[in-house]
Amino acid sequence: MSSRRVRSEQVEQTRDTMLRTAERLFAEHGVASVSNRQISEASGQGNNAAVNYHFGTKSDLVREIVRRHAGPMEEIRRGLLERYSGSTELRDWVTCVVRSITDHLDALGHPSWYARFAAQLITEPALRELAAAEIAEAPMFLAVLDALHACLPDLPPEVRHERDDMAHTLILHFCAQRERSGTPRWSATAAALIDAVDGLYRAPSRQSVA
Amino acid sequence: MSSRRVRSEQVEQTRDTMLRTAERLFAEHGVASVSNRQISEASGQGNNAAVNYHFGTKSDLVREIVRRHAGPMEEIRRGLLERYSGSTELRDWVTCVVRSITDHLDALGHPSWYARFAAQLITEPALRELAAAEIAEAPMFLAVLDALHACLPDLPPEVRHERDDMAHTLILHFCAQRERSGTPRWSATAAALIDAVDGLYRAPSRQSVA
Repeated sequence: MSSRRVRSEQVEQTRDTMLRTAERLFAEHGVASVSNRQISEASGQGNNAAVNYHFGTKSDLVREIVRRHAGPMEEIRRGLLERYSGSTELRDWVTCVVRSITDHLDALGHPSWYARFAAQLITEPALRELAAAEIAEAPMFLAVLDALHACLPDLPPEVRHERDDMAHTLILHFCAQRERSGTPRWSATAAALIDAVDGLYRAPSRQSVA
Repeated sequence: MSSRRVRSEQVEQTRDTMLRTAERLFAEHGVASVSNRQISEASGQGNNAAVNYHFGTKSDLVREIVRRHAGPMEEIRRGLLERYSGSTELRDWVTCVVRSITDHLDALGHPSWYARFAAQLITEPALRELAAAEIAEAPMFLAVLDALHACLPDLPPEVRHERDDMAHTLILHFCAQRERSGTPRWSATAAALIDAVDGLYRAPSRQSVA
């Protein structure tokens, strides 16, 4: 192996360690409470500026973690889209939305940190936008969401948007809670969420009456 | 006014300032990330042990904040229980659950921190238990939950428990998100949540089929 290749593998390993460490610390303490210096230290880097050197700003680092998970989740969606292709059953598309997360968490093994990390992201408006901007370009994600919207009962656009938002909030925080429990059973979690999110979307809008 | 009474009012004011400061810091950074010393400092207390002196441990402090909100929320529930007395409509009891929170947030004025504080509590298992233990003795809370359960479709007990858990997760995190936006419209938030939580509870359980 050439020394250049050895060096490049070492760099890759260092970056990997730092990304995993950052994800865990962000998941546990929130993104705002953890500094790049703390991540460098906890990754065993002698140089406290290692995170800045390898990734840039904290937003760049968060974006990198989001991207590492986005790829496998798109692949899960690709498989589910094939399976449910042509379906007009809301429940099938809710299943795609839920399982793109729970199947990914299952594949990460134990312990995973991604559900807690993602839940932390959606509690900080700027990071929520950052994550949303990444996913807005994911073709499988968009295809699933379109198929889901096509099965919805007639809802005003702002109500539909609110339901998407509530479904997202429920799925991520409920998965984070299960992950935190230390004994997540992802297929049971998925089944519970699919029932509930299906019901959440089907509910008629009575807001004008309320 | 006697000097003893003046002194007692000063103590009350100091405690009030510390409780408000602690709630805001916990809401912003999470309970684990904030020390009693930081709360003492941010409350303008010269003595860094002021929180320990007035409240004891951090758990004692959290319990005190929870209790400050529990009273007014029980009063809101008392009013709603009277209004919906005898109803067998699930939606009425979902309304009680949602509005005991949103009406309280509305009454707190702007900005409030309680939704974010409560959302932080449910993300730390020990604090979640602490908050649950407080509410487990609240008679109006229990009366609302009993009435709600009596209107539910036939669900296995563990599924019913999961739905309670998901409803609670959705309501608190969605309210926290609205509070964080800086422009919460609590009556609109309540209306959106009532529709969604009603649907979440009504969904049949298909977990054995999944």
